[in-house]
Amino acid sequence: MASDVKEAGGLTRLFVAVALEPGGTVTLDGGQSHYLLHVLRAKAGDRVLLFNGRDGEWQAEIAATAKRGVTVALRAQTAPQTEVPDVWLVFAPVKKTPSDYLVQKAVELGVRKLQPVFTRRTIVTRLNQERLKANAVEAAEQSARLTVPEIGEAMTLEKLLDNWPRERRIFFCDEGGNAKPLAQAAREAEMGPAAILTGPEGGFDPGERENLRGRAFVMPVTLGPRILRADTAALAALAIWQSVRGDWV
Amino acid sequence: MASDVKEAGGLTRLFVAVALEPGGTVTLDGGQSHYLLHVLRAKAGDRVLLFNGRDGEWQAEIAATAKRGVTVALRAQTAPQTEVPDVWLVFAPVKKTPSDYLVQKAVELGVRKLQPVFTRRTIVTRLNQERLKANAVEAAEQSARLTVPEIGEAMTLEKLLDNWPRERRIFFCDEGGNAKPLAQAAREAEMGPAAILTGPEGGFDPGERENLRGRAFVMPVTLGPRILRADTAALAALAIWQSVRGDWV
Repeated sequence: MASDVKEAGGLTRLFVAVALEPGGTVTLDGGQSHYLLHVLRAKAGDRVLLFNGRDGEWQAEIAATAKRGVTVALRAQTAPQTEVPDVWLVFAPVKKTPSDYLVQKAVELGVRKLQPVFTRRTIVTRLNQERLKANAVEAAEQSARLTVPEIGEAMTLEKLLDNWPRERRIFFCDEGGNAKPLAQAAREAEMGPAAILTGPEGGFDPGERENLRGRAFVMPVTLGPRILRADTAALAALAIWQSVRGDWV
Repeated sequence: MASDVKEAGGLTRLFVAVALEPGGTVTLDGGQSHYLLHVLRAKAGDRVLLFNGRDGEWQAEIAATAKRGVTVALRAQTAPQTEVPDVWLVFAPVKKTPSDYLVQKAVELGVRKLQPVFTRRTIVTRLNQERLKANAVEAAEQSARLTVPEIGEAMTLEKLLDNWPRERRIFFCDEGGNAKPLAQAAREAEMGPAAILTGPEGGFDPGERENLRGRAFVMPVTLGPRILRADTAALAALAIWQSVRGDWV
């Protein structure tokens, strides 16, 4: 008997690269196939949900469980394509576990792009782009998103600023004081594309702060009187932005 | 030569139980002594900061490094006592690592009390109260707070609601729809003591939602269109509350 492949949050959702269209079939990759068959114990006839970031969400039924991969048959679109609000997170990478956590949470909170940036006090010097991507896909699958955020190539702060699309306002979370609360700054800013910028443990150095404050597209903001870890600051800022300018309004 | 015992965020801060007063000395506990001497390699004459939740923050100098514990001499108060805004977090415990993370972040975000609650869909059935406390102390030390939040004894949702102090408004993060955005609800509510209530993975069951919505002190709120993990929801809600009603305004 057909059934639904369920996890805690509802029907299992899988991100795929291929087009999703009426009558189509999709062969899942090795990891997804293994997960369905051996972790969730799915069988032919069971239902899952698929999305690819373009064609909305589709219900699909497991048609075949061949050794090289599970094939599913698309049944019906269950949701039209949507996009998250136009906010990026520009963040200085932190240690492995907090970075994983940061990516997972930022995806749930509806970030459109994740942009790692190396600052002078950033201790992490290498970044596993594949790992970031895998975390982002998993978080998108579990949060009912229909897109996976783009993950930008890591670059230095100087390079980032020199190539920045000027119409996108950066809310720069500055621990150095003399800044408006983020909620107020976001409310007062004109509508338009935005980014949250958070630093590493230890913050930005004085030269970086000066550089940032000298740019017309940068708005320094504060996140209250306590010292926040880098990942806490990023998540708090995203939540506040969503509640003022995003889709939590 | 005297020096400062520093970590990433500045001078090392330690929470102690005893009174802090001019001319006083404090013998640190075994864990703190070990940490200072063997992790941070502190020596006699080095400076640290102490707080106890009542007497503000004090600079202290290491006076003796006896085997049974480091003794420090209080030099001067560096900050008067302050308290965080009057918001509690009532949360259904999640697995060990997310719970550790949740406590750490909630303390940074300035929660006054952490209250674990067992709901029908809560999978975790035992809670290590000592571990929660240790995490809260560490986060307070690192976030420049002058208090460690109280950690309430875990209890069932029914018991919690039946004994609730009615003047404290609960913002109930309800995934079930039909609720105002938290930022709006917090703005519209009269000033006063508050609590954020978040559920376990899988949310509250229909009977619990009905029970909650029937109470005059409960205000259902939404945190946007995506599915958030339990810990993400709690942290996002606290950040938003601080930005509307707390000390991030």
